[in-house]
Amino acid sequence: MADFRLMRELHKPMASKIVLLIMDGLGGLPLDAGGATELESARTPNLDRLAAEGALGQIVPVRPGIAPGSGPAHLALFGYDPLEHEVGRGVLEAIGIGMAVRKGDVAARGNFCTVDQQGKISDRRAGRIPTEEAAPLVGRLASIRIPDVDVEVGHVKDYRFAVVMRGEGLDPALADTDPQQTDVPPLPVRPMKDSAQDTAERFNAWIALAQTMVRDHPRANALTLRGFSSDPALPQFPEIYGLRSACVAAYPMYRGVAELVGMEVLSFTGDAAADEFAATAQSWESFDFFFLHIKHTDSKGEDGDFDGKVAVIEGVDAVLPRLLELHPSVLAVTGDHSTPARMRTHTWHPVPFLLWAPKTIRPDRETSFGERACAHGGLGTFPASDAMPLLMAHAERLTKFGA
Amino acid sequence: MADFRLMRELHKPMASKIVLLIMDGLGGLPLDAGGATELESARTPNLDRLAAEGALGQIVPVRPGIAPGSGPAHLALFGYDPLEHEVGRGVLEAIGIGMAVRKGDVAARGNFCTVDQQGKISDRRAGRIPTEEAAPLVGRLASIRIPDVDVEVGHVKDYRFAVVMRGEGLDPALADTDPQQTDVPPLPVRPMKDSAQDTAERFNAWIALAQTMVRDHPRANALTLRGFSSDPALPQFPEIYGLRSACVAAYPMYRGVAELVGMEVLSFTGDAAADEFAATAQSWESFDFFFLHIKHTDSKGEDGDFDGKVAVIEGVDAVLPRLLELHPSVLAVTGDHSTPARMRTHTWHPVPFLLWAPKTIRPDRETSFGERACAHGGLGTFPASDAMPLLMAHAERLTKFGA
Repeated sequence: MADFRLMRELHKPMASKIVLLIMDGLGGLPLDAGGATELESARTPNLDRLAAEGALGQIVPVRPGIAPGSGPAHLALFGYDPLEHEVGRGVLEAIGIGMAVRKGDVAARGNFCTVDQQGKISDRRAGRIPTEEAAPLVGRLASIRIPDVDVEVGHVKDYRFAVVMRGEGLDPALADTDPQQTDVPPLPVRPMKDSAQDTAERFNAWIALAQTMVRDHPRANALTLRGFSSDPALPQFPEIYGLRSACVAAYPMYRGVAELVGMEVLSFTGDAAADEFAATAQSWESFDFFFLHIKHTDSKGEDGDFDGKVAVIEGVDAVLPRLLELHPSVLAVTGDHSTPARMRTHTWHPVPFLLWAPKTIRPDRETSFGERACAHGGLGTFPASDAMPLLMAHAERLTKFGA
Repeated sequence: MADFRLMRELHKPMASKIVLLIMDGLGGLPLDAGGATELESARTPNLDRLAAEGALGQIVPVRPGIAPGSGPAHLALFGYDPLEHEVGRGVLEAIGIGMAVRKGDVAARGNFCTVDQQGKISDRRAGRIPTEEAAPLVGRLASIRIPDVDVEVGHVKDYRFAVVMRGEGLDPALADTDPQQTDVPPLPVRPMKDSAQDTAERFNAWIALAQTMVRDHPRANALTLRGFSSDPALPQFPEIYGLRSACVAAYPMYRGVAELVGMEVLSFTGDAAADEFAATAQSWESFDFFFLHIKHTDSKGEDGDFDGKVAVIEGVDAVLPRLLELHPSVLAVTGDHSTPARMRTHTWHPVPFLLWAPKTIRPDRETSFGERACAHGGLGTFPASDAMPLLMAHAERLTKFGA
C-alpha cells in the first residue's frame, strides 16, 4: 500500500483500539536442521491462545530476499514503501541516539579515522577504537562553534558519531567525505547543487576545527562525514489513517522513526515489556493506535544468544495479560525483520505475524505462534506495508471502496 | 495484472471453455469463535469433489484490508485493477437498475431530500421514504423534457434514483449538488471544467423542473444529484483475452458491469442457479467464456441470515451437475468479496477460490471447499485480478512468454 490514497479516502472514526506489538528481530532459525526456532522453542501460552483464536501469516519486510535496517523495516510496518520513502543515513544515525532532527536540519554520520603524516587515511575506522576512548573525543567536538548555525554532536558507538547542523537555508545535497579507500586523504565536503554551497562551507569549517581537536590522538586523529540528510518530510501517520497514534518504545531509534511519521512518543521509565504495557494502560483513553517496541529480541539475536532470545519472548508472553486486559479491538504481534541467533544479524527471512481481533477475525487452522505455523497461516505471506490496512479493516475503521 | 499486455500478446485460439461461477459475497465468518463459516457449514458434495480434484486458494478483491463495492470487485475478477479503472457512482447506480449508459451519456445518482420553507435541507434522505412513496415521484420526473437532450430517470430504492442524460457534447465534469450537510440549500450543478458548462446548465434546468413536481410532497420535496459520470471506456474483455464472452446474470448491476467490459449479456428467465445453468447450456457452443453470477449468497449475508446463506450455497451445489455435464475445460468457483452474515455487509476478508481443470490442474492437499481449506490451499493468497490469467492458462489459451 505504497500509495496512501485508499487509507486517506476510506478511513472513518470508530471507537476501536489498535495495538501493534513489535518484537524487534522476532523471526529466527533453528540451531540444527529440523529443530525449533527461538519463537517455536519459547513457552508462550498466551501468544498460543491468541494464535488459536486469531489468524497467522508472515510478512516480507521490504522485498523478498532483502535484509532491512531498522528504519526501513519500521516504515514498512507503518504502511510506507521503504523504497519510496527513504530516510537518510545521517538522520537515522542521529535519531538512533535520541538527537532531534527538525525540519531544515542537516544530519550526518561521522567516523573517526587514522591518517598518516601526509594526511592520507591508513584506517577508515581508527582501529575501531572503543566507546571509552571515542566518547571523550566527541565531547570535545561538541564545544565547536560555527557562525550562524548550531551544531550538535552525539556519540553512537565505538568510532561512530552523529552530527546535526541547525540554521537557516541549509541544504543536505552534499557528497560524503569518506573516500571509501585508504591511502588517500579525506575529501572535503562538496556541494552537489549550487544551493548547498553555503552548507558545504559551514561543514568544512566545522571539520577544520574538529581536526585540530583530535589530531594528537594516536588512532582517532581525523574524521569523515557521510550520509548528509534532512527530515524526509514523510506523510504523517495520524493523518493517513485518522488515528491518534502513540509510540511506546524504550530505545531512541524507534522513538525517532515514530516521531518522523508524526506519532506522539510517550515518556515512561524502564525498558521491559511490563513497563511498556503499563505506559500503554496509562494513556489508553487518549489514543486509538499504540506502536509498542520490544528491543531485546533483536539484541539477543545479534549476540547469537538463542536461549536469551527465547527468554525475552517468554518474558513478553508472561506479562501479555496486562495488555489484553485493556481489551484492544485489534492486536498484531510481529517483528520488523528476522534476527536469527544462528546468524547474529538482521536477515531477509519473512517475519511471523499474529493477528487477533475477536470481532472480525477469520480463524485459520493454526494453534500456536511460530515460524512454521505462520508460514502456513490463513493470512498468507504478504508485504509488511500491507499490515496497517489489515489492522484498519479489522478495527472497522475503513468504509467500502466503490459502489 | 492491471496491464493487459501479456494477455493481449499471448492469448491464442483453443477449443476450450472457461466458466467463472461467482457466488456474490461468498466469503464468510463463523458465528462463534472456532465455529464453521457459512460455506464450511453447507453440505456441498459436488463442490467438495471439485475441491478434491482441483486446487484451492483465496483471492484479495481490491487490496488487503479493503472492502469493495460490487463494481470494483467484479472488475478485479475480470482482470482489471479497480484502482486504475474506476467506474463512476452515477454509472454504477444507473446500470445497477438496468438503465443503459452509452458512450457520451452522463449518469448521476439522485436522492430525494426534505427542505424547509427557506429551502434549506432538513433531511438529506427525505426521511428515507419507502419505495411505494418514491416510485410514483420518479414516474413524474420521467415526464420532464429538456431541449436537445434525452433524460431518463429510474427508481433505485427508497429515496434513491438514477438519472441518465443523453445528447451531443455532454461532459460529466460536474460537482455534486448534495452539500453533505443539513441547514443549507442544495447546491446548483457546477461545471468543474469549461467544457462542462453546457451540461451543467441542462442539469440545472432539469432540476428546476423536477423541483416544481415534488415540492408539495410532505417529505420528498426537493432532490440532490451526485456522482456525475460517463461510460469509462474500459479496455474490452473479449479483445484482451481473445474470448467470445457471455454474461449469465439475473441482476442488472452485474449485467451492467459485464456490458461495460464488452461481454455479451444473455437473456433468460428466472434467477436461480438452475436457470443460469440452463441458459449457459443453451449458448454453450457460441461462447468460450461464461461469467455466471449468483446474487442470493450476498443478499442473505447482508440480511444477517447465516442459515439462509448456507441454504443458497447448498442449492447451487445441488444443481452443479447440470453445469458439469457441459464439460467445461476450466471452472472457477469464487465470490467477488466476502459478506459474512455475522457482519451483514461487504468485508475485506479474502474470498475462497476453487479452480477445477481436469487436464491441467496441479492438485493440492485440500478435499473440501471452505474458507480454512482455501486459506491453506495450493494456489495461495493472490489478487483477484490474477484470476483471469490463471483461467486462461488452465484453458491452454496462452502461449509461452519469451524464447
